[in-house]
Amino acid sequence: MKKITIRETVLFYDTDCGGVVSNIAYLRFVEKARAALFSELGMDLLSMTETGLFPVVIRTEIDYRTPARLGHEITVTACLAAVDKVRATCDFTLTITGSDGTTKTIAGARQIVALVQMPEGRPKRLPAEWFIFTG
Amino acid sequence: MKKITIRETVLFYDTDCGGVVSNIAYLRFVEKARAALFSELGMDLLSMTETGLFPVVIRTEIDYRTPARLGHEITVTACLAAVDKVRATCDFTLTITGSDGTTKTIAGARQIVALVQMPEGRPKRLPAEWFIFTG
Amino acid sequence: MKKITIRETVLFYDTDCGGVVSNIAYLRFVEKARAALFSELGMDLLSMTETGLFPVVIRTEIDYRTPARLGHEITVTACLAAVDKVRATCDFTLTITGSDGTTKTIAGARQIVALVQMPEGRPKRLPAEWFIFTG
Amino acid sequence: MKKITIRETVLFYDTDCGGVVSNIAYLRFVEKARAALFSELGMDLLSMTETGLFPVVIRTEIDYRTPARLGHEITVTACLAAVDKVRATCDFTLTITGSDGTTKTIAGARQIVALVQMPEGRPKRLPAEWFIFTG
Repeated sequence: MKKITIRETVLFYDTDCGGVVSNIAYLRFVEKARAALFSELGMDLLSMTETGLFPVVIRTEIDYRTPARLGHEITVTACLAAVDKVRATCDFTLTITGSDGTTKTIAGARQIVALVQMPEGRPKRLPAEWFIFTG
Repeated sequence: MKKITIRETVLFYDTDCGGVVSNIAYLRFVEKARAALFSELGMDLLSMTETGLFPVVIRTEIDYRTPARLGHEITVTACLAAVDKVRATCDFTLTITGSDGTTKTIAGARQIVALVQMPEGRPKRLPAEWFIFTG
Repeated sequence: MKKITIRETVLFYDTDCGGVVSNIAYLRFVEKARAALFSELGMDLLSMTETGLFPVVIRTEIDYRTPARLGHEITVTACLAAVDKVRATCDFTLTITGSDGTTKTIAGARQIVALVQMPEGRPKRLPAEWFIFTG
Repeated sequence: MKKITIRETVLFYDTDCGGVVSNIAYLRFVEKARAALFSELGMDLLSMTETGLFPVVIRTEIDYRTPARLGHEITVTACLAAVDKVRATCDFTLTITGSDGTTKTIAGARQIVALVQMPEGRPKRLPAEWFIFTG
């Protein structure tokens, strides 16, 4: 199963006046992890511009479990959970590790992604090899 | 049933290099509508700062259906779909109206929100009157 | 002199954990005002997509004077301060009005904008009529 | 002279429908570099929350020179250019390196930052040792 991990530190622009990471900012962490996952699958960002083949998010689900704060280092693990002809399901787990070494899950997310050939905007079948990458 | 509508024009910072509104930007439209809905329910943003009682999003789901583009006017309708003791479910429908007058749904979203008393971070029961506002 | 005014309420995603509007969020207010100013000058967002003629910001200056907070209504006034063959200078003043009726300037900004014909990426002369719109 | 360098890849949410990095997104790259610079100066993000001593941007200037695009790796170099009793001036240079090895400056920025003791909101003198770190 293809699985990647990224780390990202919470900056001021990720937080809101509640003192914690904004619900919207988590989606940036998720998108950064998805870019790393797709790169691992052979679709890196630079090649997208050349081929005109872009991933398009058609559904996002995210559960916020524990707040993260300024300066926390967030670990995002992403994997390709399922694929069918035209859709890939990507799962994301976001965690922080406290100064005492314990790890807390701060959020879990799932995104369903289609591939679209631009500029026509035509949906495209997923690469056959992606089927063997799912868990 | 409490229901509100806002209108928001797609600006450059809402779009990405795919030429359409970024999946993350939709969450700003949703948050703006949620602020209007909560204001209608008696919790406006200014009073939150005074009371220290803040809505916290604990889950978001969003389905992206049709792309929206620069300059499109997006209408967001938000309603309080359900409440239990500690959680409110808010539903959102995002539409655009074409130059021919036809309306297209561009996205549908649902958020589950808890109320948290700051700075203690203690969850609080929803106001009793919110129960009569659900559909 | 062409001059427009917009109003925008500070939402959660505009603030950071310092309890005030993030320095980056102000640029969204400025961009919204610039879109309104350019629309007034005959370049609205929808027509940009059709003509392929886009404004490109080549310089931004912004001075942050007084913090704004969640729920504050920010008034942004924008005007076309100067134009030469290929560059327009836009000035922005951001204010809030307190409950006692006094107005405070929270920030002042200036952006220099060029017009670029896409997809060639070729700079284009400013419309002649813009010269009479400056203050 | 204190000087740091970070690298950041342009993601979808950094770009706009002009096909290039949004003028606002550059400020996120700048803020990430500033956090690294301040950490090097002894003020990391986690300690800010503990001490309540926060940097506040009071002025930003940024010149956009060459567009950057999806997947480009942006290098941001930040240094402490000047300090006086209550203000630090930070300079930023943003570059990309092409596949042929040539480096292009995409933007240059300057921010003036004050230190503010929260929650009182009282300006504070800069640490004496910062004076020896300027160029």
